[in-house]
Amino acid sequence: MSRAAVPASTYRPLDVESLRPFLAAQAKVRELLGGRPATWRIREVGDGNLNLVFIVEGADGAVCVKQALPYVRAAGPSWPMPPDRAFYENAYYLAVAPHVGGLIPAIYHYDPELYCTVMERLAPHIILRHGLIAGRRYPQLARHLGEYVARACFFTSDLARAFERNMETMALFAGNKALVRITVDLIFADPYCESARNRHTSPPLDALVAQLRADTQLKVAAARFGQKFLNDTQALVHGDLHSGSVMVSETDSRVIDPEFAFYGPIGFDLGAFFGNLLLSWYSQPGHATAADDRVAYRQWILEQAGAFWESFRGRFLALWAEHAEGDAFPRRMFGGPEGAAALGAAREAFMDTLFADMLGFAACKMIRRILGFAHVLDFESIADANLRAQCETGALAMARLLLTRPLQFRAVADVIAAVPGVAVR
Amino acid sequence: MSRAAVPASTYRPLDVESLRPFLAAQAKVRELLGGRPATWRIREVGDGNLNLVFIVEGADGAVCVKQALPYVRAAGPSWPMPPDRAFYENAYYLAVAPHVGGLIPAIYHYDPELYCTVMERLAPHIILRHGLIAGRRYPQLARHLGEYVARACFFTSDLARAFERNMETMALFAGNKALVRITVDLIFADPYCESARNRHTSPPLDALVAQLRADTQLKVAAARFGQKFLNDTQALVHGDLHSGSVMVSETDSRVIDPEFAFYGPIGFDLGAFFGNLLLSWYSQPGHATAADDRVAYRQWILEQAGAFWESFRGRFLALWAEHAEGDAFPRRMFGGPEGAAALGAAREAFMDTLFADMLGFAACKMIRRILGFAHVLDFESIADANLRAQCETGALAMARLLLTRPLQFRAVADVIAAVPGVAVR
Repeated sequence: MSRAAVPASTYRPLDVESLRPFLAAQAKVRELLGGRPATWRIREVGDGNLNLVFIVEGADGAVCVKQALPYVRAAGPSWPMPPDRAFYENAYYLAVAPHVGGLIPAIYHYDPELYCTVMERLAPHIILRHGLIAGRRYPQLARHLGEYVARACFFTSDLARAFERNMETMALFAGNKALVRITVDLIFADPYCESARNRHTSPPLDALVAQLRADTQLKVAAARFGQKFLNDTQALVHGDLHSGSVMVSETDSRVIDPEFAFYGPIGFDLGAFFGNLLLSWYSQPGHATAADDRVAYRQWILEQAGAFWESFRGRFLALWAEHAEGDAFPRRMFGGPEGAAALGAAREAFMDTLFADMLGFAACKMIRRILGFAHVLDFESIADANLRAQCETGALAMARLLLTRPLQFRAVADVIAAVPGVAVR
Repeated sequence: MSRAAVPASTYRPLDVESLRPFLAAQAKVRELLGGRPATWRIREVGDGNLNLVFIVEGADGAVCVKQALPYVRAAGPSWPMPPDRAFYENAYYLAVAPHVGGLIPAIYHYDPELYCTVMERLAPHIILRHGLIAGRRYPQLARHLGEYVARACFFTSDLARAFERNMETMALFAGNKALVRITVDLIFADPYCESARNRHTSPPLDALVAQLRADTQLKVAAARFGQKFLNDTQALVHGDLHSGSVMVSETDSRVIDPEFAFYGPIGFDLGAFFGNLLLSWYSQPGHATAADDRVAYRQWILEQAGAFWESFRGRFLALWAEHAEGDAFPRRMFGGPEGAAALGAAREAFMDTLFADMLGFAACKMIRRILGFAHVLDFESIADANLRAQCETGALAMARLLLTRPLQFRAVADVIAAVPGVAVR
């Protein structure tokens, strides 16, 4: 796996017309779609910040095509962004597929010149964030995602395998600087400063935003997590594991969009998912209707946050017990029953550090979605600005507590117990 | 700076005869040495574990030539070792020279085919370890070395410059896997297990060694530092900064042999130097003579340990205050007097984490030099095995305390106060 140098001149953004012959030229994809290419139904459905996304339906099947644009879609060509992030997305899928194959889409083809991936069209899946806004429940979701982070991160860590392999992978993903730069700026710096890229629900949140930007304790905590994000190379992380990067059906869950992948802290992936569940919880009053006050649904979401952590924790510990073939905590140092007991306790202590990281990163993710550049539909779709601001105020208060009072949260039950009390009524 | 792929067939170990034409072909070196090449005095002086080292003296000047062997010199050709470590040594010198130019040798030439570096011949310098065994004092040493680690590490960290540059350097040094493998095995695993590569002063230390290898608390602590060594990519570190990697004169100090360089924790370099000063302290009774009981000298060594840390700490904080141009703790987040005060406190707290790391890594380094593969002349040169074992017992007791009772050591004064009490009389 090495990075192909491709002359920029061969790149062109695909459209509905050019996509048809591109796909027709791939025997496997052509067979999968079935029928004559002219009959394929193609539509562009991308609603993310960075890429073109097409759904292509043929007589026999369907595929999804994702192409990286050379700029940030949400900002336009004035914010250039190298399309080679598609290379890292594909490299991430290749690296984790042996461990989480059933929880990512099948990849049919990657084109290094067009920075374009042809993959399984997931149906009847929808983006989890949309499901959470609609108040839908996914009984397997928390278990699947906990399992996902545990497997993807454990097997790419020094706990599971010789460090040499991880160093090679780390060196490869060290090229993904443009996307790491986005995280560094948009998550760990901009929200805490005046920046032209920031926005918030104004005027209702003006006073609170000013207060947060003056909260030095909060900023020091956020900066510490920013430093940890850059320096703690525990595992290959997805890098953007929010509820918009998960597609769900009643029974299935798939993680998508790993273009931010790099070697970083496991808590960053945990925190992205956990934090977005909390954002969903705080947004629910904005989606209540006469028929559904969302009170029971909110409770369900909090339970999923707990179940996600417990699923991750249980699976990670089980994998560690079974596959400790790495250079970190080498098994040969801990022979005999006393060694095993000490190692068991050390593993529990390590899980506690991941838990603390999860909460800190979750809080950073929550804050950036309310004060920073990229917001979330959970709040954005609440038309009433005052109601939206009320929801956002609760989420900000909880994030602030997580960052400035970390010792109050020793177990996930502490978070679940605290959330309902930290909300604007 | 990229890694040159060189066909192995062009490599040959140099000797006194082949070195002469090799140097004569380099105009700069030829001029520096002066006179006819046939008159140059060449001798091989390497006493390390890994390399050939030649001193070449001409009519006008002298150079030192270091060539990597394709195996571990101390073990012989049965333990192969890629000679490209010379590439990383040269890359490290290039990376830190702008910041610590006066504290490393001048590099005249690097030959990527022979994995060979021609550098300044340091005279009247000697290896610091030899000076410490001889009981000599170096008034500038502690200040120089503290300054060295502060400057080399600060300027290659995310505190000083944009993370992109550090990620590129990290990716480059991620290739230095063979030498990182040595550290991982010989420092963080072997000493705590039965291994054919281990040895210790036997039989006097047999019981203590068995006890240490059964001390699960000690082993968990060592394993945590082993994990931190692999995952905490704070800065470009020298990777082997013991007292054999420093050359000293009365007024000058130079750091050599950075072939273990990679992105890792700053505390690893701090701990290597600090731990080797403690090893020297514990070895002094073995070098006492009727004329010099080494009591005052021991006190001087402990003072140097303190001065080293204080020099590092003061310089690192001063650099951080002046050159905070990096992505970690970005300056723009901490405007105004309150922001500056909070940032100041956060910096002090960060220094405390480096201090704790220094002590933990120092302890790991001390243990491996007594229980592991590579020992130090400080102890090895004590002919009386019982006296040597007494010295080593004290050092092991101190290392164990540092690893298992870290909270007893909040400041360097705590260490200095504890050392004399943790010694076999």
